Amino acid sequence: MLPVNLITELQQAFPSDRFYTDPVDCYSYAYDNSRKIFPPDAVLFPLTTQEVCHIISLCNRYHVPIIPRGRGTGTAGGSLPEFGGIALSMERMLNIISVDPANRVIVAEPGVLNQTVQDAAKPHGFFWPPDPSSAHFSSIGGNIATSAGGPHAVKYGTTREHVLGLKAVTGTGDLITTGCYTTKGVVGYDLTRLLIGSEGTLAVITEATLKLTALPVTVTGITAHFSDLSSCTKAIVNVMALPQLPSALEFLDAGSLNLIRGRYPDMLPLNTHAMLMIEVDGFSEDITSSIAATLDACHTDGLIHAQQANDTTALWQARKALSPLLKEIAPKKINEDVVVPVDTLPQFLKGLTSLSAHYNLHNVNFGHAGNGNIHVNLLINPDDVEEVARAERCLDEIFDLVIKLRGTLSGEHGIGSEKRAFVSKEIDSVTLNLMRNIKKLFDPNDILNPGKLFPP
Amino acid sequence: MLPVNLITELQQAFPSDRFYTDPVDCYSYAYDNSRKIFPPDAVLFPLTTQEVCHIISLCNRYHVPIIPRGRGTGTAGGSLPEFGGIALSMERMLNIISVDPANRVIVAEPGVLNQTVQDAAKPHGFFWPPDPSSAHFSSIGGNIATSAGGPHAVKYGTTREHVLGLKAVTGTGDLITTGCYTTKGVVGYDLTRLLIGSEGTLAVITEATLKLTALPVTVTGITAHFSDLSSCTKAIVNVMALPQLPSALEFLDAGSLNLIRGRYPDMLPLNTHAMLMIEVDGFSEDITSSIAATLDACHTDGLIHAQQANDTTALWQARKALSPLLKEIAPKKINEDVVVPVDTLPQFLKGLTSLSAHYNLHNVNFGHAGNGNIHVNLLINPDDVEEVARAERCLDEIFDLVIKLRGTLSGEHGIGSEKRAFVSKEIDSVTLNLMRNIKKLFDPNDILNPGKLFPP
Repeated sequence: MLPVNLITELQQAFPSDRFYTDPVDCYSYAYDNSRKIFPPDAVLFPLTTQEVCHIISLCNRYHVPIIPRGRGTGTAGGSLPEFGGIALSMERMLNIISVDPANRVIVAEPGVLNQTVQDAAKPHGFFWPPDPSSAHFSSIGGNIATSAGGPHAVKYGTTREHVLGLKAVTGTGDLITTGCYTTKGVVGYDLTRLLIGSEGTLAVITEATLKLTALPVTVTGITAHFSDLSSCTKAIVNVMALPQLPSALEFLDAGSLNLIRGRYPDMLPLNTHAMLMIEVDGFSEDITSSIAATLDACHTDGLIHAQQANDTTALWQARKALSPLLKEIAPKKINEDVVVPVDTLPQFLKGLTSLSAHYNLHNVNFGHAGNGNIHVNLLINPDDVEEVARAERCLDEIFDLVIKLRGTLSGEHGIGSEKRAFVSKEIDSVTLNLMRNIKKLFDPNDILNPGKLFPP
Repeated sequence: MLPVNLITELQQAFPSDRFYTDPVDCYSYAYDNSRKIFPPDAVLFPLTTQEVCHIISLCNRYHVPIIPRGRGTGTAGGSLPEFGGIALSMERMLNIISVDPANRVIVAEPGVLNQTVQDAAKPHGFFWPPDPSSAHFSSIGGNIATSAGGPHAVKYGTTREHVLGLKAVTGTGDLITTGCYTTKGVVGYDLTRLLIGSEGTLAVITEATLKLTALPVTVTGITAHFSDLSSCTKAIVNVMALPQLPSALEFLDAGSLNLIRGRYPDMLPLNTHAMLMIEVDGFSEDITSSIAATLDACHTDGLIHAQQANDTTALWQARKALSPLLKEIAPKKINEDVVVPVDTLPQFLKGLTSLSAHYNLHNVNFGHAGNGNIHVNLLINPDDVEEVARAERCLDEIFDLVIKLRGTLSGEHGIGSEKRAFVSKEIDSVTLNLMRNIKKLFDPNDILNPGKLFPP
């Protein structure tokens, strides 16, 4: 329950259509793509940086949690109001402040959708590389808070590499301005990157200076079918050893392919047990040599066939077919997005197979193999207590394997609430303690997204 | 003067060839490329991370300044022991811990030279993009501490984009491990980037995981001569508007060209008043279309001629000729490395011309125009008090112009001691205060490179 005085002050400052307190209205802000539910006590929709400063100052005075929120597409529970408080929905800060093609920069408010940025950049021959699968729906504020990536990160990097500067409001309601407007700049500490991926625990982003990238002139696809997993992982390593990085290198394992076959029986050859979808792009109209080299890199023992798919729709057909199926099984899966060094993928995927066999679990693995970023899905019946317990033990071993291989527990989804129990597997206590102290510095009363990102 | 007990403890822990206290020995660690002189009270040469922890713990106990130092090539005075204390020379931590071409990673100690990393990467078809002009001599520790850039940053970015993780020791002697070994990773706060460019004020880097980039297959050069500055700056804007970024886009103004003519009368056509040296690279052997587009972009009114220089030695001839001349006039120049948005370069360079005329100063401007990163050199007689005063007033106005154009005070040299008086022009007091508090968190007794980076 919010303090009455705080409610009164907020009611004075915000019209009722920008300050929800009715539980029915608030309920839409109780969940995200983690499928957990924690209703906020209120929802606020700021329109300006000044309003965000005012809200946070007030909440800081009353020690009330503020849970900043983009469009709620995160899978790690980062926007869940676990301890109640106010959901700070940035969805109405929708202005693109400037489009500056000469300097390859767009300045935008956090509620602007990723897709809107792409639409603003495209007429000038540019795009903004972060491409989470939610790009048409998710906002740049959320993308920045999680350092979102996607299939094209293998060539273009993640959000971290594509933001020049930020305006943000700390847990004391103070406005800070980080970074610069130019591609080079070394004045002061890099607070921009410190905020990127901090999941709203340090400050609320109210403006972002985005660095644009030129759209490639030519894009083509390659699909490669393999009779066995090991040949496929070898091909991944081969492709990543080529000088020119592919612009996407997506992997589907046998479990994923079987899931697709269940719905679309004729889409995939029966003998395909692992598959790659590769995109190659370039500034030259002639990328023949890149295509030839990539096709060649796919020629491992178990290759059934690899072919160019100029129609990128055809390229992504299998991956797109998988999406709704994954949504259908959504409540029945544990979804992780671990990363391992590319050359350990064969060992990692083999390890996954043994672990799922050992724990008698079904799993479906796919993802951004070019970054070694694999989405591991354990398919479980959430009502089967014994199976859930087995899945948890399996997950624990999967994470240990990831760390053993010098990988990381999350490549793009973040920690949020879902993965915080495992953070200490990756980050030592001294470093973690320093991070906690940084959190305290930005947010002394722990009101910004409390409980997230750190182990309990 | 160092506390006697500290000296005793250090003498017990380090042999005399790794602990200098004789002022004559220490003097070599009193200066860097800023041409200021501040002798340390002692110099230590750690060989391991553990030793660095031990040294910093001790100094923290005695509140003695530690000035971490790579190879002393910085121009901003970042490695000067202004308040005495111990120069911590990392130059003997020289191990390349691993070269991992399959994952495009080299792990190295901070004393390893940039050139040594290039030599280790090259046989595998890779390079490490940061390329300060000191690359053959400077160390990766120093490169990371300053987020070094160079001519190729226009396409490949600066150090910030090419480090995956770090080991570092804070001002309390605690070892922290930041980042990860993979190209994606979002677990915890991005302390890697926080340390990059922090000029040894937060922690001493003892190990770095460097991300490698594939060497281009084809590299070619273009030189373009212009009859006037304005046509040249227009060409810069045109080149930067092309989809494919040049791999270098270096600019020399009339002052620079005249300096070269004074020594090499026949090197440059007399009617050239501004010049561009452009490098174009690619993975295809055929980069004809990029070259044609770049040549075309140079076609402004005042273009005298633009031509391809396949021999990159020829390309850099004028720039290389400038270097020793700049060294000769070194004590008589104030060298800045400001950055402005690329499309404001015409306005900025025009502004520079008026300012130097107004203050009756000679200046020489050149640099990494593709990033808008211009090295502004005011040529002054350091013994002429009145001229020095004029130069200081001029510099102040130059910085104001930079900020007005949304630029930044330093693109690659950093703040160190040289530019700290101006930091408040760029960073507001709230943000600066937060940075000061971060410094306090990492280094509560202000022993790590005290006085640097922040305004006095």
